[in-house]
Amino acid sequence: MTTASGILNPVWSGTKVAHATSDEAVLAALLRVEAAWGSLLAESGLASRASAEQLARISRDPRGVGIETDVLADAAAGGGNPVIPLLAEVRRALADDGADDDALHRTATSQDVLDTALVLVMREGTDIILQDLRRVAAALAQLSADHRDTLCVARTLTQHALPSTVGLRTAGWLDGVAHSARRLEAAQEELQLQWGGAAGTQAALVDLSAMNGTMPSAPAELTSKLAQVLNLPPMARPWHTQRQSILEVSSAVAGVLAALGKAAADVLTLQRPEIGELREPGGASRGGSSAMPQKRNPVLSTLIRSAALSGPGALSTLHHSAASAVDERPDGGWHAEWPHLMELLRLAGGAAARAGDLFEGLEVLPEAAAQNLAESGDGLLSERLMSQLGPRYPGGAPALKRMLGDAARGGVPLRTALLQGLGPAELPAEELDRLLDPRLYLGRTGEFIDDALNSARHFFDADSAQARSAAHPTNG
Amino acid sequence: MTTASGILNPVWSGTKVAHATSDEAVLAALLRVEAAWGSLLAESGLASRASAEQLARISRDPRGVGIETDVLADAAAGGGNPVIPLLAEVRRALADDGADDDALHRTATSQDVLDTALVLVMREGTDIILQDLRRVAAALAQLSADHRDTLCVARTLTQHALPSTVGLRTAGWLDGVAHSARRLEAAQEELQLQWGGAAGTQAALVDLSAMNGTMPSAPAELTSKLAQVLNLPPMARPWHTQRQSILEVSSAVAGVLAALGKAAADVLTLQRPEIGELREPGGASRGGSSAMPQKRNPVLSTLIRSAALSGPGALSTLHHSAASAVDERPDGGWHAEWPHLMELLRLAGGAAARAGDLFEGLEVLPEAAAQNLAESGDGLLSERLMSQLGPRYPGGAPALKRMLGDAARGGVPLRTALLQGLGPAELPAEELDRLLDPRLYLGRTGEFIDDALNSARHFFDADSAQARSAAHPTNG
Amino acid sequence: MTTASGILNPVWSGTKVAHATSDEAVLAALLRVEAAWGSLLAESGLASRASAEQLARISRDPRGVGIETDVLADAAAGGGNPVIPLLAEVRRALADDGADDDALHRTATSQDVLDTALVLVMREGTDIILQDLRRVAAALAQLSADHRDTLCVARTLTQHALPSTVGLRTAGWLDGVAHSARRLEAAQEELQLQWGGAAGTQAALVDLSAMNGTMPSAPAELTSKLAQVLNLPPMARPWHTQRQSILEVSSAVAGVLAALGKAAADVLTLQRPEIGELREPGGASRGGSSAMPQKRNPVLSTLIRSAALSGPGALSTLHHSAASAVDERPDGGWHAEWPHLMELLRLAGGAAARAGDLFEGLEVLPEAAAQNLAESGDGLLSERLMSQLGPRYPGGAPALKRMLGDAARGGVPLRTALLQGLGPAELPAEELDRLLDPRLYLGRTGEFIDDALNSARHFFDADSAQARSAAHPTNG
Amino acid sequence: MTTASGILNPVWSGTKVAHATSDEAVLAALLRVEAAWGSLLAESGLASRASAEQLARISRDPRGVGIETDVLADAAAGGGNPVIPLLAEVRRALADDGADDDALHRTATSQDVLDTALVLVMREGTDIILQDLRRVAAALAQLSADHRDTLCVARTLTQHALPSTVGLRTAGWLDGVAHSARRLEAAQEELQLQWGGAAGTQAALVDLSAMNGTMPSAPAELTSKLAQVLNLPPMARPWHTQRQSILEVSSAVAGVLAALGKAAADVLTLQRPEIGELREPGGASRGGSSAMPQKRNPVLSTLIRSAALSGPGALSTLHHSAASAVDERPDGGWHAEWPHLMELLRLAGGAAARAGDLFEGLEVLPEAAAQNLAESGDGLLSERLMSQLGPRYPGGAPALKRMLGDAARGGVPLRTALLQGLGPAELPAEELDRLLDPRLYLGRTGEFIDDALNSARHFFDADSAQARSAAHPTNG
Repeated sequence: MTTASGILNPVWSGTKVAHATSDEAVLAALLRVEAAWGSLLAESGLASRASAEQLARISRDPRGVGIETDVLADAAAGGGNPVIPLLAEVRRALADDGADDDALHRTATSQDVLDTALVLVMREGTDIILQDLRRVAAALAQLSADHRDTLCVARTLTQHALPSTVGLRTAGWLDGVAHSARRLEAAQEELQLQWGGAAGTQAALVDLSAMNGTMPSAPAELTSKLAQVLNLPPMARPWHTQRQSILEVSSAVAGVLAALGKAAADVLTLQRPEIGELREPGGASRGGSSAMPQKRNPVLSTLIRSAALSGPGALSTLHHSAASAVDERPDGGWHAEWPHLMELLRLAGGAAARAGDLFEGLEVLPEAAAQNLAESGDGLLSERLMSQLGPRYPGGAPALKRMLGDAARGGVPLRTALLQGLGPAELPAEELDRLLDPRLYLGRTGEFIDDALNSARHFFDADSAQARSAAHPTNG
Repeated sequence: MTTASGILNPVWSGTKVAHATSDEAVLAALLRVEAAWGSLLAESGLASRASAEQLARISRDPRGVGIETDVLADAAAGGGNPVIPLLAEVRRALADDGADDDALHRTATSQDVLDTALVLVMREGTDIILQDLRRVAAALAQLSADHRDTLCVARTLTQHALPSTVGLRTAGWLDGVAHSARRLEAAQEELQLQWGGAAGTQAALVDLSAMNGTMPSAPAELTSKLAQVLNLPPMARPWHTQRQSILEVSSAVAGVLAALGKAAADVLTLQRPEIGELREPGGASRGGSSAMPQKRNPVLSTLIRSAALSGPGALSTLHHSAASAVDERPDGGWHAEWPHLMELLRLAGGAAARAGDLFEGLEVLPEAAAQNLAESGDGLLSERLMSQLGPRYPGGAPALKRMLGDAARGGVPLRTALLQGLGPAELPAEELDRLLDPRLYLGRTGEFIDDALNSARHFFDADSAQARSAAHPTNG
Repeated sequence: MTTASGILNPVWSGTKVAHATSDEAVLAALLRVEAAWGSLLAESGLASRASAEQLARISRDPRGVGIETDVLADAAAGGGNPVIPLLAEVRRALADDGADDDALHRTATSQDVLDTALVLVMREGTDIILQDLRRVAAALAQLSADHRDTLCVARTLTQHALPSTVGLRTAGWLDGVAHSARRLEAAQEELQLQWGGAAGTQAALVDLSAMNGTMPSAPAELTSKLAQVLNLPPMARPWHTQRQSILEVSSAVAGVLAALGKAAADVLTLQRPEIGELREPGGASRGGSSAMPQKRNPVLSTLIRSAALSGPGALSTLHHSAASAVDERPDGGWHAEWPHLMELLRLAGGAAARAGDLFEGLEVLPEAAAQNLAESGDGLLSERLMSQLGPRYPGGAPALKRMLGDAARGGVPLRTALLQGLGPAELPAEELDRLLDPRLYLGRTGEFIDDALNSARHFFDADSAQARSAAHPTNG
Repeated sequence: MTTASGILNPVWSGTKVAHATSDEAVLAALLRVEAAWGSLLAESGLASRASAEQLARISRDPRGVGIETDVLADAAAGGGNPVIPLLAEVRRALADDGADDDALHRTATSQDVLDTALVLVMREGTDIILQDLRRVAAALAQLSADHRDTLCVARTLTQHALPSTVGLRTAGWLDGVAHSARRLEAAQEELQLQWGGAAGTQAALVDLSAMNGTMPSAPAELTSKLAQVLNLPPMARPWHTQRQSILEVSSAVAGVLAALGKAAADVLTLQRPEIGELREPGGASRGGSSAMPQKRNPVLSTLIRSAALSGPGALSTLHHSAASAVDERPDGGWHAEWPHLMELLRLAGGAAARAGDLFEGLEVLPEAAAQNLAESGDGLLSERLMSQLGPRYPGGAPALKRMLGDAARGGVPLRTALLQGLGPAELPAEELDRLLDPRLYLGRTGEFIDDALNSARHFFDADSAQARSAAHPTNG
């Protein structure tokens, strides 16, 4: 099967989303829309039943009647989109079978069919992304629970800042992923049927209905039924040149890439040999090098990061397309959307699939985390010392601050200087031990982790996920 | 007053949003956050009342104590952000007044203060954008109602396609603007307080509370009160390196630019002299040329378009920043956000202000619209002829299609050819007149316009807008 | 043959560049590099001749030994790039034939092979782009010469400004295209061999040479020969994480898209029915509509415009990739480059191919151009009137300016007002006729056209193009 | 002085480029162009000498006659650009002084003046960037020479790969910076005068010359002299809507950001406490934290990285602008260019200034580099072992590869396993010592460093730089 070109796209090649967005999948969606409409027309007496049935058969197996994506692709330049050559091919196939073509594309325009087909592909693609994000979130939740109390150092502007926990870090990733998923779920609701006819007025449909003596409400009802049959929400109005819903969905998909990209960037840092707090899952065919047998490369986070680097450019193109959607059908802006929508789905779907593998198998190395924390020494508690001892220190806070700076630069041993400065009466050894114990300076980390888990649970929890997917039965 | 550099930014220079996002406005927001926190600390006995009061005074008039944005700007490079030099200046001013500094910035980190200040600026900035979008929507609604039945031609891929109405076109713009505004209103809810302390754990605050013997719940309560005082929703958790809410708001702002940009692109086309269906409002100092006194330039739509061209790049930068927000505070990704958030607000705020002027004063020229429609001649009804006459035409649909193509290329007069082909019995002159009357081939345009008005009314309607703004009393 | 996914990419589907950048072409380039290196190693006694010969055979027909792009694509995720699974497949194929693998990939790293292969693809792709740009430039030169004196109106900010000629407009397009082509030719020189070994030091090659007792200069010489065999300029130094040459080439390719996009945007405007100065070439299968037989859509310029809308996002991704190329091999930045380089080549190659067809067949309609000019009336000469008559007009320039503004708004007939204002003695009718003759107010248009043709001739001229292509014999 | 808003832009606030691109600098450049033209007109008898002289006086001190950037900025929206209100102000000032306005803007259009002024600002801005890049390059050359033999580990995909040297790393940065500088110098040559008159035909100038009886070549000569007076290369043809030179310069500026961004990203990694091979220069007011006295933040590289994250979005906007430059003056595309050109100059100028400070003061810690290398142990030489011992090892290369993998995972001590596998006769201890000595596996590092220094020397060398700057005397 010809899926999209993948040899230079390891982040998504071979994943589920690659199939869902392949040329074959787009062709299937185009035909699904044509067949659904043909069937509704026949039910309403606006087309012959035989034509609709033959169309439905063709739509289930286009290759069986010689309809090939490569041929359509090359012919698409003639009319500027693949629907025009597709219609010619389907007409030919209908004629080959002696069937009428009156159920085909009647009163529709190519943009109706292509936009709706891409909406179907986007819904399927975003469902796949959400499925993998549930795996990611469940894995992150597990890591956060497991490492709720695993000490590590928090880093700001790359430098050691304060004590923290591994669980807070993974709960942060969870926050990002769950937030992006919530937004994507909301954006999916924007994916509507497109049905406006040649210029967004449904004039041909109204005319056809009138000719056939149906009720004046027939066009609205047929439109509404088409949405229902395709499992889409009802269309408010044709949106041939109002692309806000496309922007909403694609921004949400780009948001997923940002959330995963941030987590992957952290993993890439934290599994550097000198830091070594995390280890990507390996395996027989993963992470090898062509030249260096000793290496295990963090391939999953590398690929996720490559996807995160690629999303924003595609998103910006979609915004330019939307802003240049002139007239009642754009002169290029619409055409620039198609591949970039597919690209965003592939990038996020690929990254989510890799992130599922990454976080389900991620090893945390608590000893390394503890070791890195320890290397920072007592200076890591400087903020606390300033607050607790500043007022009592001889010379006050400014003097203590200077001393802590000196200590950080290796000038004086911090503990000695403190004891000398304050004396054992003012600062008993036990108090100092307590002050310098990183486990006693974790603030609200535990509470934040618990909150993050609670807030994300509805998303990744198996039962509720099942309930949710039951609501979209045809996506299964 | 030093606002942001405007000489090369006519789209927003001098508008309300330029002031709301100026260096002075950012400074005021920074000080507002510091003062609010100092005051809460004092109320809880965690800082001295005198220090908090003096801080509040300074925050109301920073220039009065010699705090200047230019000096802060140039000093910001030292620590990488403007909060660090600002604290030094405020400390100096407190000392000048003999006040303690214990209410200043206590337990906070610069990111808490800067993120929260930018959130305040974004809320103000998006409120301004929404106010202008209400003007835009109301004007578009009026145009749509006024021109519900004004005939014009619909254009696809730049060519005449079918009859339509001016009202449907403006209702489309209204759809886009109202959709983008709805999304921006929803995104505003994401604008949260940032309050995590040095590394997102609130360790210092917990420690300070414990030292002072407050309840263990004090840190959570203080955080919650700070949000309330600043009129922000409660913070879920610190989001120093989880920037989804920033992406959500900025994507929504970029969506506004796309909606306005599409409408402006249409106006630019439709007021070309050869088309002439629309005319931008002019005025004493608007649209003049430096060399050609006869010209009236469509300056408002030109500026809106320039803003729409500029938004997507800024949005892509924000996505890259979010994806590179490593560790517990980013090493550059955070810093790249600030100016681009301001840029997006200015672009959308400027474009919305110009769009308010544009659409409130836009002239529709129905005669020109009718004339352009007429130029297309009977061929504009080809779709209808195919549907109604195709089956009856000698040679069927393919023959009729050929004839219509010939007619379009100027080969044959369409009406003559039809009458010759079908004969007066098959096609009485009155039926042909009816078939070729564009007013009888408008489909559901009226219904779509009415729906668009109904659906957008809640947004732009004065009363409901007032109700809404009453809910955010401090933004007034 | 599986080329890249094209059903949603009509701008490049089926064009020469689509084949040159397909998965198969990338595979062929990868194998070409491996085979060339294996052969040089064998010549130097650093690998067995039998291994090198068998490798060369495999590289000429990978499918013959069961190496399939789809399989490689799906396996690429394991090591993060397609070279790793390719090496495994080639090793298997060598073993199947009983050949040693010592000529395969020896001392190289996957980045050496992939970067060099992509450089080969880029050189081929940019050659194809340049070939089509020559067609474009030659066609534009012909149009400019043919319409050197065809009057039309120049438009600024969409409004009529001054008289001009069609030839100056097409010469402007030629200027843009020729400039972008010149820059692309210069950038091609930057496409270098990549050959650094595992970490850019060539340590393995130096070691292997020493083991085999070759001269100390052997590594440098072998590197140099490899470049020569692949018809590439000598490599200065390995550039695994210094991607300036990639940026230079991709910026130049994006520049081509901007030049073609500007021209296409003009064509889209000028062939609007109301303006009608240009007409895209049609043809049996081009420009048809799925619903409206009377329409002829400007498909070529629409597709070119869609490509121009897509290029800048890809270019921005490449800049982000270059800036994030950390260490001695990037952790994602490199990987994000590959598909976007191919995308840029396809977009520009597709756009150039469509532009060749567009401009070779573009019809100019001088009557329409003259008609549009005439519609503007005498006011189009306002600048001239201000300059020539301002000083003499009663009330001076300000009064004349007011009058011209009034005239433009339809208040007074310009010619009458002028004659009344100045009187026949001051302004004889013949002088006024002369002043208002647009053919006498064309400034240096003819000279500018001639200069543009002269300056671009070396690029598109058949003979010099042939000479040029002879210099790159292997690209033929 | 009002420079551009800087409080949220610490990377460039307060730097030389901020002043060179401020509103005041733009105003000065606009007036410089008007004055130069006025003066040439007067010399040719096409304007009065008094008017030209007064104009020159005003242009030297616009504030002295009450011309303020803020007022111009706010008035720019009226005509869409700042030249129109500026002309009104200058006219007023000339009138105040009783001077004629006939030397002001005669035959020019606002785009001529604004484009040329921005070209002057860009030349100045790129000169400043190049000056700082020379500092950067000289510092990197020094570091490369000093650390030509300082051992460190090379990292690929974040993991230890092979031995290398610190000097090769800094020479890589030098390669990138020198390449980007070379390209920027070449691009500067593209910065041309813009002089086309109202619609790019120079009709008004030709007309004025004819009225005054000058030679037919006068317009060309005056244009040429204007370029000379402004120290610009001669203009080929007006480029109002052909923006290739803008793209060429801005791509080169973006390339500088990529080169500096890559180096800064490396510094950010290598100064992490766990790695610690580099240390940014500190200082009294640099790198401090608002909460943690022990911290020293890598502020310079953080700011450079923030600039590198911001450049690509601005570059993509400029490409969109160029592609949408319709007609003979764009309807928004031109306007979107201005602030983004300034932004790119500021980002690159700020980043280059910070990079000068960073690399002139960068501390290398050879012990840490050696320590990190040592931590990797003998496995770092795996590639070499495979090549040298693979054929001799029992079981051959596959067995050795397995053993090296086991050793890397901590299974077996590598050295012991090798000695056991091969025996002391086959592998004497001295040979093994030699094989495992990283200093003996550095390949061509020294040669590459020397080549990089030689190739960059002409750029950063003081004498040649001086020679170069002497060629552009007015930029001093």
